[in-house]
Amino acid sequence: MLTGAQYLESLNDGRVNYISGHSVDDIEREPLLREAANWVARVYDHFYSPDPDAVNPMVQPPRSADELREHVPLMGQVDFITSTTYQSIMTLLTAAAQVNRSYPELGRRIYEYVDDAKRRDIRIVECITDGKGNRKLPPSKQPDPDAYTRIVERRDDGIVVRGAKLHITGACLAHELFVMPTKNMKPGEEEYALACAIPVNSPGVKMVSTTYAPREEDDRHFPFTRHEQMPDTFVILDDVFVPNERIFLDGQVEFSALFAHSLGLWERTGGVALMAIEADTLVGLAQLIAEANGLERQEHIKEKVSELVIYATLIRAGLEAAITHSRATEDGFVFPDELYTNAAKYHGAHQYNEMVRNLHDIAGGAVLTAPTIADIENEEIGPLLLKYMQGSATVTAEERIRLFHAIRDLTADGFGGWHLVTNVQSGGGLYAQRIVTRKHYDMENAKALARRAAGLEAEVTA
Amino acid sequence: MLTGAQYLESLNDGRVNYISGHSVDDIEREPLLREAANWVARVYDHFYSPDPDAVNPMVQPPRSADELREHVPLMGQVDFITSTTYQSIMTLLTAAAQVNRSYPELGRRIYEYVDDAKRRDIRIVECITDGKGNRKLPPSKQPDPDAYTRIVERRDDGIVVRGAKLHITGACLAHELFVMPTKNMKPGEEEYALACAIPVNSPGVKMVSTTYAPREEDDRHFPFTRHEQMPDTFVILDDVFVPNERIFLDGQVEFSALFAHSLGLWERTGGVALMAIEADTLVGLAQLIAEANGLERQEHIKEKVSELVIYATLIRAGLEAAITHSRATEDGFVFPDELYTNAAKYHGAHQYNEMVRNLHDIAGGAVLTAPTIADIENEEIGPLLLKYMQGSATVTAEERIRLFHAIRDLTADGFGGWHLVTNVQSGGGLYAQRIVTRKHYDMENAKALARRAAGLEAEVTA
Amino acid sequence: MLTGAQYLESLNDGRVNYISGHSVDDIEREPLLREAANWVARVYDHFYSPDPDAVNPMVQPPRSADELREHVPLMGQVDFITSTTYQSIMTLLTAAAQVNRSYPELGRRIYEYVDDAKRRDIRIVECITDGKGNRKLPPSKQPDPDAYTRIVERRDDGIVVRGAKLHITGACLAHELFVMPTKNMKPGEEEYALACAIPVNSPGVKMVSTTYAPREEDDRHFPFTRHEQMPDTFVILDDVFVPNERIFLDGQVEFSALFAHSLGLWERTGGVALMAIEADTLVGLAQLIAEANGLERQEHIKEKVSELVIYATLIRAGLEAAITHSRATEDGFVFPDELYTNAAKYHGAHQYNEMVRNLHDIAGGAVLTAPTIADIENEEIGPLLLKYMQGSATVTAEERIRLFHAIRDLTADGFGGWHLVTNVQSGGGLYAQRIVTRKHYDMENAKALARRAAGLEAEVTA
Amino acid sequence: MLTGAQYLESLNDGRVNYISGHSVDDIEREPLLREAANWVARVYDHFYSPDPDAVNPMVQPPRSADELREHVPLMGQVDFITSTTYQSIMTLLTAAAQVNRSYPELGRRIYEYVDDAKRRDIRIVECITDGKGNRKLPPSKQPDPDAYTRIVERRDDGIVVRGAKLHITGACLAHELFVMPTKNMKPGEEEYALACAIPVNSPGVKMVSTTYAPREEDDRHFPFTRHEQMPDTFVILDDVFVPNERIFLDGQVEFSALFAHSLGLWERTGGVALMAIEADTLVGLAQLIAEANGLERQEHIKEKVSELVIYATLIRAGLEAAITHSRATEDGFVFPDELYTNAAKYHGAHQYNEMVRNLHDIAGGAVLTAPTIADIENEEIGPLLLKYMQGSATVTAEERIRLFHAIRDLTADGFGGWHLVTNVQSGGGLYAQRIVTRKHYDMENAKALARRAAGLEAEVTA
Repeated sequence: MLTGAQYLESLNDGRVNYISGHSVDDIEREPLLREAANWVARVYDHFYSPDPDAVNPMVQPPRSADELREHVPLMGQVDFITSTTYQSIMTLLTAAAQVNRSYPELGRRIYEYVDDAKRRDIRIVECITDGKGNRKLPPSKQPDPDAYTRIVERRDDGIVVRGAKLHITGACLAHELFVMPTKNMKPGEEEYALACAIPVNSPGVKMVSTTYAPREEDDRHFPFTRHEQMPDTFVILDDVFVPNERIFLDGQVEFSALFAHSLGLWERTGGVALMAIEADTLVGLAQLIAEANGLERQEHIKEKVSELVIYATLIRAGLEAAITHSRATEDGFVFPDELYTNAAKYHGAHQYNEMVRNLHDIAGGAVLTAPTIADIENEEIGPLLLKYMQGSATVTAEERIRLFHAIRDLTADGFGGWHLVTNVQSGGGLYAQRIVTRKHYDMENAKALARRAAGLEAEVTA
Repeated sequence: MLTGAQYLESLNDGRVNYISGHSVDDIEREPLLREAANWVARVYDHFYSPDPDAVNPMVQPPRSADELREHVPLMGQVDFITSTTYQSIMTLLTAAAQVNRSYPELGRRIYEYVDDAKRRDIRIVECITDGKGNRKLPPSKQPDPDAYTRIVERRDDGIVVRGAKLHITGACLAHELFVMPTKNMKPGEEEYALACAIPVNSPGVKMVSTTYAPREEDDRHFPFTRHEQMPDTFVILDDVFVPNERIFLDGQVEFSALFAHSLGLWERTGGVALMAIEADTLVGLAQLIAEANGLERQEHIKEKVSELVIYATLIRAGLEAAITHSRATEDGFVFPDELYTNAAKYHGAHQYNEMVRNLHDIAGGAVLTAPTIADIENEEIGPLLLKYMQGSATVTAEERIRLFHAIRDLTADGFGGWHLVTNVQSGGGLYAQRIVTRKHYDMENAKALARRAAGLEAEVTA
Repeated sequence: MLTGAQYLESLNDGRVNYISGHSVDDIEREPLLREAANWVARVYDHFYSPDPDAVNPMVQPPRSADELREHVPLMGQVDFITSTTYQSIMTLLTAAAQVNRSYPELGRRIYEYVDDAKRRDIRIVECITDGKGNRKLPPSKQPDPDAYTRIVERRDDGIVVRGAKLHITGACLAHELFVMPTKNMKPGEEEYALACAIPVNSPGVKMVSTTYAPREEDDRHFPFTRHEQMPDTFVILDDVFVPNERIFLDGQVEFSALFAHSLGLWERTGGVALMAIEADTLVGLAQLIAEANGLERQEHIKEKVSELVIYATLIRAGLEAAITHSRATEDGFVFPDELYTNAAKYHGAHQYNEMVRNLHDIAGGAVLTAPTIADIENEEIGPLLLKYMQGSATVTAEERIRLFHAIRDLTADGFGGWHLVTNVQSGGGLYAQRIVTRKHYDMENAKALARRAAGLEAEVTA
Repeated sequence: MLTGAQYLESLNDGRVNYISGHSVDDIEREPLLREAANWVARVYDHFYSPDPDAVNPMVQPPRSADELREHVPLMGQVDFITSTTYQSIMTLLTAAAQVNRSYPELGRRIYEYVDDAKRRDIRIVECITDGKGNRKLPPSKQPDPDAYTRIVERRDDGIVVRGAKLHITGACLAHELFVMPTKNMKPGEEEYALACAIPVNSPGVKMVSTTYAPREEDDRHFPFTRHEQMPDTFVILDDVFVPNERIFLDGQVEFSALFAHSLGLWERTGGVALMAIEADTLVGLAQLIAEANGLERQEHIKEKVSELVIYATLIRAGLEAAITHSRATEDGFVFPDELYTNAAKYHGAHQYNEMVRNLHDIAGGAVLTAPTIADIENEEIGPLLLKYMQGSATVTAEERIRLFHAIRDLTADGFGGWHLVTNVQSGGGLYAQRIVTRKHYDMENAKALARRAAGLEAEVTA
């Protein structure tokens, strides 16, 4: 396993990174990426074991509902790309079980790749979303054939890949890209039916990142994101060579949706687990700031806290129900029930903006206007600011200010905006999330109940 | 155990029933009560066993999470007063365990009463809500001291009780009233700290009922409520004598809230179980009528069905999470986790009206204007009505009409209105439900998460 | 003009009415239709003038924004079919102005019909919605060609019409049916491009009605609907002959959507005016019952009343804005702005169920369980019921009971259900209402604002 | 009148400004304040007239509904502190009319101050919100008596003031502070019943600002806030001397709430006018990005656009209804109806977060991950980024990127967060806004309607 320091060192591998229009030579000296890398490094250190056979427990999949229940909190707590590494490995294993039957060679490659990735303790990100071009047209009819990532050349020893993958959180800090089709491909679209693993430092890979990282030199009024932040990367595959051993799908259109679908199983679990923690955090912030303001006994404040409580509880209920009704893949890997995770995730995303409104309504305008740490350290104005920011006697002015900072940082600044968007977009937008939930629902049972209520079934007795 | 016929016979016990301004001599001949009694009788027959030692399985409480999971569907399916009998017995046992320590005599009475009630296979309703008079004043300050049910006289052999209990669903068809205080009483309000069991045919008990039962002589276009209906009873206790053996609380104000609180544990389970079934039924009706209309593939119809699906799934998730995290009373009776049941119940009630709107939006105006069964049986107009009510070829016109009837009966007529009101009122209104949910939430954990996000705790690492 | 008595007499004209499976010989003796007819008669009396040249002021269209502002309250207050008579006449006049240019003969017929209808002081209903059969297919492809109303025979002196018109509120109590296409017809569908006026007593017209009229013999606990109720009629046109003078559209497919579209202009005004009054009524009921319960100062009650207030105010704001920005037809008839009326109507319908929930949450369970007037008149139980229904000292128990009756009658019983459904269905369902609102919105202005914010326009200054 | 250049020069007046912990010597060289000052300067130039008697038309109050209708768009378009100058002057004039009767000396001072302020063409901000300390205690009971701004010393020539005023948008860029009590003061709280005008460069005034201004050196991907931004200022009054001529209230507790209340009249108008424009901008962004993505014909996209349209239309309806029903102060200044403005403002704030969710749901993840202008100008990666950001052929990749920037800038970054919070907080939080709306509603009319529906009034006829 790697230590945090070894991880940071591994980033100096020639990868081509851009941010804000300039190229990044040394991630540890780039203020907009450095802290994200440090977060990943801290998680490396957290799991590190010097045992040469040790493997990160995150990538050891649960094999029973009880193991799953223990595993879930972990998923909600590690950095983003440690999560995606787990999801990638689970996705590959799930897909391998099916691909293997028809194409044993592809299956073998996947299993070997997974073993190697675990051993090397690398970080992997999932690359799904393509540029997509004109959304009204399928991949093969696009004015620019590269709008969807595709194979532009086949050689004996591998393929050459061209395209772009968007919204790849953390790609610039990972080791490998797990590339898969963004949608089901049809016969005639074989060049787009492509899954493979690509090291980020492969020639032709160019990464352009954006980030909600605070830009302030003194970022102490960003108590959360100064330590936990992650850029999003626009990954360009500009004629990248991929050797055969790393190709997991190459024109088998019948399996083109398999990888993205399998990924869904594993992605949602972590997503809902994280959402449940975040929802509890919103409740806690609401209650703490109400107390700091001295308003925690006001009826309308309590009502809004209650709404936050119910929101958080329903998300967790979905997670718990999903674990209780977990299922196993053919290989015995246990995953949560899809209906419950989807419904919980949808509810969490759908109601989130309203819950943020409740939090802001409880907290007050100082969410925006609380002075910075530097302000309160200033000798001339600091004591006056603390004097006038003193609320309820039970909380110091500084603690109150820091709570306002946290609320702004988490919900009313760059990261807050990132959260608003990713909440609805992860999982493909609310529309897609509704479709998926409907798909997993037992509609026949519901129809039978309805027919009974309508007297269209024989038995009407209790 | 009693058969259905024996139950019906047992109703001729001299009870004083009124409905629509007239007294009811014979329930089996009263059109507004008859069908409700028949429903209860059918459930008696369903559970009947000739074994002299047999006891209704409904009143055998679960002793593990697994038993609870099996028990739950039962709770959602029996008639209303069989449910309240179960709840009454569980409440009495739960309360007895606590009362017994301080007042062994009261404890003994409760245990003996429960044994006797099981043996006699009677039906019991819970009487909580008082008239309450001027809500701004406590019981002891009311202009009319009887606004809350109270002891007006103490004798050697018992007490005389005066007051009214409102909204007692099914009381007119039960055998006994389980009377308990509607709220916590304080020292000085001993006369109001009263719990007891009163046979409905006791002198002084007067019952006035209302009902959503269809009034039409030919009620075939009420496919649900013509078979499953239950009146609500206004129970007047006009100086009713209660012998000592049936008194469970008599002035012990410290236990005055115990009974209503214990009841909550058991009432919610059945409530949420029923709500989950009803939500699935709404989904089924929405899907079936969309299909009958030939509109099930329209995008906006599918979206609304999805919303119904997510609604139903979140209620069930709450129920499932509550069972998974069930707890046990001191006596080993297992009950669902209160946080999850409350959150699920609140969500079910809070969103219900919107879900009904979705159903009506999907179904169309024929919910109201579909002709009756008598209309379609009429020789002159019947064939024409069927001709013009034919929608999608996959469903007959008559089936389509019956689906419209079911939607109207369940959501847009007397019972629909009853449902709208009881959804928000059972559990004491949405406000009370929010309070209860907040009470059971782990706020300290949420605050710790929030403090961590605000950097107010030492550890900030993952 | 007709008096109420003359109107009632005019109903004995041989019309074929059915309800609940039986035919109706004499409306004044049919309990399910009688009160609706009496309501119409009261409105006749209200407007009656013995002047032989007098015309109902309702059918005198406004010619300025100020006249419109005075006209609007009228629209919200008369009985349903007096409203539809006004709407029908306005629709005919609006359509005539356009039809006249291409087909002066059709124009002449319309103008003469309108003059005649005003003079005879008749009541007209609009017949739009067809049976529609399989919704996935157009009229001309239906398995049953009569699924949309059509011309089955042409004669020298007129046409023979076959089909059904559904959800025609009050048709059984009107004098004439104003028949028009339910949707735009295309070339090849000439037989369906039909508009005409048909007396309800024409041979072949068969009407089957449903109604939310209270079925109780003693209906005093239905304070609203016992006086103001209106049946919905399923109108069957079973080969009905229509003479040429009464045919307004006969195969001119290019005008097939004109009538329904013109109707929209006039229908919405009355709809929103009525909605605004109903919303204020909900507010008033909420406040009165809160006061009667003695809970009007509770914070959470005030919050819910506030939400109702804001709901009612936004509907009225839409109506007011629509009047301020009213427009005129070519003939100088002033109608409210369509964008504002549609947005207000949508909001009123979309939020209605939630507002009903608020009202029920405020009122309490006695909405359902308040005793009837007959109960409180009963000598034995009446005094006891009044004793225990006494709430706040400022309101008598009987008044409080009557308020509960009103809430149940308006929102939680047959009429309440009718209201839930018609709210979303009138105007074609919420989906159709959204489309219409979007159509009338000034999207180009919004796009220009957005382009400016994005810096895509030259000027960025204030 | 002042030109923009003269305004910028006027800021060098010795004022004490802090931001991010450091003091600001020269606003034009402070990156976090400079652009805000430039915005104000542009508005100065826009209105500038060399006529020596000229006065800014913004501060010429409307005297009829028609003038008001013309005035409103102006209010929604100028910079923030030009708006507050107008509001301050209107507030002072409205208050003067009432104060004048009891205290002619105070009235005289206000009128003279207003004349002087207009002549000097200065910018004024309203200072209301105090530190407030422990919210459970009134001003006179606070542990720190300065928690509410107060008079600490009286001299012959004036008073000395101590306290803090929070959330004062733009104070650091204005000329004068219009200080008024944050709430009604009671007898015994005379030292807190204080209104006055204080130049920002008075000794003892210390201002600490926060801002959502983009921190990036290259801020071209913030198309809106790079040009239109405004800091919020924490104003500390550290024993500031105020001469008598500038004191408008000095202990007259009976008028302590008058200023803040009068302010409400004028503040809301501008607030709702701006909100209506912003809502239309959201609609425009939604439609433009849907078109750029090529998804504008998708049903679920159209539905979400429709919801935005209805939201924007209801806000505007409220504004229009408020203008139509405008009223006049005693002095003949016309202001919009308070019920309609409040209801519109509440709706705009209450639904805003949900509308932002719709916009994000429509737009997609590139709201966050669209590359910057610098990225697309980079020679190596720019062409590739444009290649893969090309969506619908009707919009260039760069325009599409700029639309994503605008959506992020306005709704998902620092300013977006500022907007979320100020939406609910301006006007005192949603709770306070509900109270105000209820206060202005005609409850007696609503109750009369309800009583009529309940049959509690004589007339039941139409």
